[in-house]
Amino acid sequence: MAGTDRSKKSAPDDAATARPVPAVVLVEPQLGENIGTASRAMLNFALTDLRLVNPRDGWPNERARAVSSGADQVIDGARLCASTVEAVADLDYVIATTARSRDLVKPVFTPETAAAKLKQVIEGGGKAGVLFGPERTGLNNDDVTLADAVMMVPVNPSFASLNLAHAVLLMGWEWFKLGDATAPERVEYLDTRPANKEELVGFYEHLEGALDKSGFLRPVERRYLMVRNIRNMFNRAGLTEQEVRTLRGIVASLTRRVPRGEGPEEG
Amino acid sequence: MAGTDRSKKSAPDDAATARPVPAVVLVEPQLGENIGTASRAMLNFALTDLRLVNPRDGWPNERARAVSSGADQVIDGARLCASTVEAVADLDYVIATTARSRDLVKPVFTPETAAAKLKQVIEGGGKAGVLFGPERTGLNNDDVTLADAVMMVPVNPSFASLNLAHAVLLMGWEWFKLGDATAPERVEYLDTRPANKEELVGFYEHLEGALDKSGFLRPVERRYLMVRNIRNMFNRAGLTEQEVRTLRGIVASLTRRVPRGEGPEEG
Repeated sequence: MAGTDRSKKSAPDDAATARPVPAVVLVEPQLGENIGTASRAMLNFALTDLRLVNPRDGWPNERARAVSSGADQVIDGARLCASTVEAVADLDYVIATTARSRDLVKPVFTPETAAAKLKQVIEGGGKAGVLFGPERTGLNNDDVTLADAVMMVPVNPSFASLNLAHAVLLMGWEWFKLGDATAPERVEYLDTRPANKEELVGFYEHLEGALDKSGFLRPVERRYLMVRNIRNMFNRAGLTEQEVRTLRGIVASLTRRVPRGEGPEEG
Repeated sequence: MAGTDRSKKSAPDDAATARPVPAVVLVEPQLGENIGTASRAMLNFALTDLRLVNPRDGWPNERARAVSSGADQVIDGARLCASTVEAVADLDYVIATTARSRDLVKPVFTPETAAAKLKQVIEGGGKAGVLFGPERTGLNNDDVTLADAVMMVPVNPSFASLNLAHAVLLMGWEWFKLGDATAPERVEYLDTRPANKEELVGFYEHLEGALDKSGFLRPVERRYLMVRNIRNMFNRAGLTEQEVRTLRGIVASLTRRVPRGEGPEEG
């Protein structure tokens, strides 16, 4: 999907990326594609600290860069580590992503709770990170033991295998949302604004006058109910001031006497 | 990531998939890979109604199936449509996914709000769906006009280009969460249970008795503070009954008099 504002790309202290972020640690990832799409997903949500523990096909990996859609900041900054212990050495708090329960007594978080916990650690001045295991097998139990908590993504139990980059994306998304102030619902009014009640009633009276003349609002004992329903229908549309003017234009146009010879053909 | 319970796969009326779901409409998708990974993402979150409007490389597409990791239910059930209007004809409510603002006065939802709206429509007995546009250009304005609302995913403004399957994944995830009852945080105790206070204090007294004998808790005027800090440290670990027994075993082992000749070698 298009939409990146390239002009903002060079700003080194961009507000969205200046915030301290959790590290993403990919342990023994197998496919360069997944490292690349995970990097893209990370940068979409302003995560920039990628650590790779023994990627199967080595590092750097041109396939990873090719599918990252320009997430060079993440790809170029990725740290290659020889072990999970090395990758998390500087971290104060680590969450291990797993797809199945392990034989370990440890808190298990949903992605939302995991993100909230990461935020809490980071806002307290600590460094935090999330571990993701190899595509086929997931993290081994030694790596899970190293972590302070486990993140499990609730999924359809009959099709539970999440793609590696998709798991990274969900964690990034839940993290990003905690710092995002986008209104849950908004309407952009561009060059116009919602019509006020005076404008709406002006239109309703204009329309009802035309309909009285055309005979639509008969019999008279049904007029009240018909008018109420028509007003309610237009009210529900949340019309803008401009749309009310358009509607008045439509009514005017439909009621204009067409000069003989310019009307629609008959028959 | 591993974890699918294959035994559940054949159940046709699986609770997770029996629930009516929103349709996912991919308009002119370019890459078979994206159709495949989107299908996988859909099924991870129990979405099964895929509609394809003029996919560039035709349909069926073996590349799509290959990368879907077994989401055959979605791939095989996908409906090929000649136009967006055809694809949404039976739907009562449609949300268009866009990456940028359009010159249209229409409600703009976050993915969470979009999911809540879809749920509201579907629980009211209606049929709903979400449109996703081609990778490079996104939906055209005619398709957006057809929709009742717009969904925009808040992203890092300096790297805003979301992968098509990733956009589908986020919508699926927000939808799935609304029907999911997973506890935000839980601890699995397996064959054990949290230690009760009697067990904990029993261990503390065992340890402190040993430390009194070994001389660790001196001088006596510091004993109270040292004991308090040691107890607090172990308390914070949230020990299980089994772990308390392990710790008592460790203390017993460390304080056992080793018979001459069986101790660790000296020097």
